[in-house]
Amino acid sequence: MHDLLLRNVRPMAGESCDILIRNGKIAGFGTFEADGAMPVEDGQGAIIAPGLIDAHTHLDKTTWGMPWHVNNRAAILRGRIDFERENRKQIGIDPHRQSMRHAIGLAANGASHIRSHVDIDTTHGLSLVEGIWQTRDALKGIIDIEIVAFPQSGVMVMPGTVELLDEALRQGCEVLGGIDPCGIDRDPKGQLDILFALAVKHGVDIDIHLHETGDLGAFTMELIFERIRANGMEGRVAISHAFALGMNDYLRVGKLIDEIARLDVAILTTGAPSATVPSIMRLKEAGVRVGGGCDGIQDTWGPWGQPDMLDRAKIIGMKNGLRSDIELAHVLHVVSQGGADVMRLKDYGLAIGCNADFTLLTGETLAHAVVDVAPRPMVVKGGRVVARQGKAIVEMP
Amino acid sequence: MHDLLLRNVRPMAGESCDILIRNGKIAGFGTFEADGAMPVEDGQGAIIAPGLIDAHTHLDKTTWGMPWHVNNRAAILRGRIDFERENRKQIGIDPHRQSMRHAIGLAANGASHIRSHVDIDTTHGLSLVEGIWQTRDALKGIIDIEIVAFPQSGVMVMPGTVELLDEALRQGCEVLGGIDPCGIDRDPKGQLDILFALAVKHGVDIDIHLHETGDLGAFTMELIFERIRANGMEGRVAISHAFALGMNDYLRVGKLIDEIARLDVAILTTGAPSATVPSIMRLKEAGVRVGGGCDGIQDTWGPWGQPDMLDRAKIIGMKNGLRSDIELAHVLHVVSQGGADVMRLKDYGLAIGCNADFTLLTGETLAHAVVDVAPRPMVVKGGRVVARQGKAIVEMP
Ligand SMILES: [Zn+2]
Ligand SMILES: [Zn+2]
Repeated sequence: MHDLLLRNVRPMAGESCDILIRNGKIAGFGTFEADGAMPVEDGQGAIIAPGLIDAHTHLDKTTWGMPWHVNNRAAILRGRIDFERENRKQIGIDPHRQSMRHAIGLAANGASHIRSHVDIDTTHGLSLVEGIWQTRDALKGIIDIEIVAFPQSGVMVMPGTVELLDEALRQGCEVLGGIDPCGIDRDPKGQLDILFALAVKHGVDIDIHLHETGDLGAFTMELIFERIRANGMEGRVAISHAFALGMNDYLRVGKLIDEIARLDVAILTTGAPSATVPSIMRLKEAGVRVGGGCDGIQDTWGPWGQPDMLDRAKIIGMKNGLRSDIELAHVLHVVSQGGADVMRLKDYGLAIGCNADFTLLTGETLAHAVVDVAPRPMVVKGGRVVARQGKAIVEMP
Repeated sequence: MHDLLLRNVRPMAGESCDILIRNGKIAGFGTFEADGAMPVEDGQGAIIAPGLIDAHTHLDKTTWGMPWHVNNRAAILRGRIDFERENRKQIGIDPHRQSMRHAIGLAANGASHIRSHVDIDTTHGLSLVEGIWQTRDALKGIIDIEIVAFPQSGVMVMPGTVELLDEALRQGCEVLGGIDPCGIDRDPKGQLDILFALAVKHGVDIDIHLHETGDLGAFTMELIFERIRANGMEGRVAISHAFALGMNDYLRVGKLIDEIARLDVAILTTGAPSATVPSIMRLKEAGVRVGGGCDGIQDTWGPWGQPDMLDRAKIIGMKNGLRSDIELAHVLHVVSQGGADVMRLKDYGLAIGCNADFTLLTGETLAHAVVDVAPRPMVVKGGRVVARQGKAIVEMP
């Protein structure tokens, strides 16, 4: 691990100071003399924030860096899933190459950690996960990658998937995924019973995609709550998207959020611009752990997105109707500390003893940085500079 | 006016050709030899599209280029209006300097025309309009600016405003604005009767801000429809925002849109991320004229926005849940031809005889250009290159 003396940076837009890094950890804030051997960098008064966290993405899906993928197919969820599964190989979406591009892009833009759902289905088995593992190994020291074993095509409707999920967890996937137990699987009890049994068996957390809206999504959430209680999985379950929390029924949403807080369920949001999304400020008031993610970027599902958690913060902030400096500082929290809370990262943050994973940000205030989305002047991982001015030290393949 | 031979461009992402410009007008598409005196530019195979149109903005409000404006005030519409009116001078929002920055930014990013609402109130009289007129004159040949005389603080609740609007129209403001006749003025009949009488008197169009949502906004729209019919103002009225068209009642929205189409009312949208917005695809099907706008950018109201209509196209596209190439091409249409239709611009477009106002775009397809929002390689106004790589030929003050 690395030593570094980083001069003239403003922790969370506060007063300027130097940061001393020893052996990849933050050793002090203040004014320091460089000893001879230690690398020294000048932060030039930039804001310094802990590494950004993309706590919900899909490293195996992007067409980033490939020719433009023309898409005039029907906008139907099941159709998108099936098209991708049946065509990703001939389109040339190589899981290793594409996840390298995606992850290097995130690192170049200040991210230190990724939680990626990776498709597991009966067409591809674990081959997509293996591609991402290659990337994880190749980018060791640049960015950390955690994998969610994700049954994108469904569990109950795709016999053979349960065995593959079981095998993926056995081989080391850190988290178990799930998807729309009603909408996709048409059997909420079936999918959820199996997911919770698998998670208990392997001792892993669950992170379930829940696009289901309104009353349907609320119903599924209640089924999830029941199983958290029954299996003692408080603090171990995340719900991604949670579009039902964006429904108009204020009181019903309040009851769901109360239960989410009580069971310490984490929420992941992408600020999906055309969907009903959870209010991050309301979740904050309730003390719920909330992280952010870019979700799929430029893939067969749709053209939007880029590997940049500050751009994502902007999208989340705009979608949530946030305008004040205090609120925008909280949006930055969601894509940094919030994601770390969801992933339960150790030694994360801007404090003595924490890992020296951080990004510099351009702006007068945190809100200014979120609004401007300027290239990150410098990104540091484990005390080593891994990107400058939006360019990582490793090339995209 | 200017001559130009622009080589190797792809009109609307089609086949590459040269474009010949004579005297500021498009004279031909094909392959041409340069005569000695004529300037020649190489488009390097970029897409060419007609000039982007910011058909709804506020040139008098931005803090662009000023120190970051910290804002932790309450998020209340009336409070925002009053704070701005009472503080814009001491904050230093000089209408001429700030509108120069705003308009030059738009031009640098490919815009050829602006419709700007400009505040008229009893505190400032017509002084803000005068600042924008200075800018309009200073930027002649770079970008065209049309002014909407805009009673931001209300009409009925601010005695003296009617006389100022009357004077502004007499002095040459092209369009009459209005704002939330119920929400702000608490007197929809009063405001609308006065607006229509003033418009008829001066022979100008109306463009009314309507943030009112749901049933309230629908009611106000009906009052507007009645007055269009009564005054024979079909084709002469625009509704900006029209958030009521984003309500959930599909049938009611359909009836409103039918009437909007019948009376040839134009709709301006900003794709406001946290509001209920009209569906641009549904309006397209009904044959309604729809333009786009950046609205206020980085002002005392809020921190979001930048002077870039391609970025705005992206926001509108994401908010509308659009993903296909065909849909994204339509988003580009909204921020170009759509805005021109709303402003009823003459000789606009990529056809022989049209004004040589256009922008080059980077991307394989139109959708790709909308998604990537890369710097515009070149912007041409009246046959003259006015910006390259996102930088205008005039400096921001
Ligand atoms: Zn996802
Ligand atoms: Zn406006």
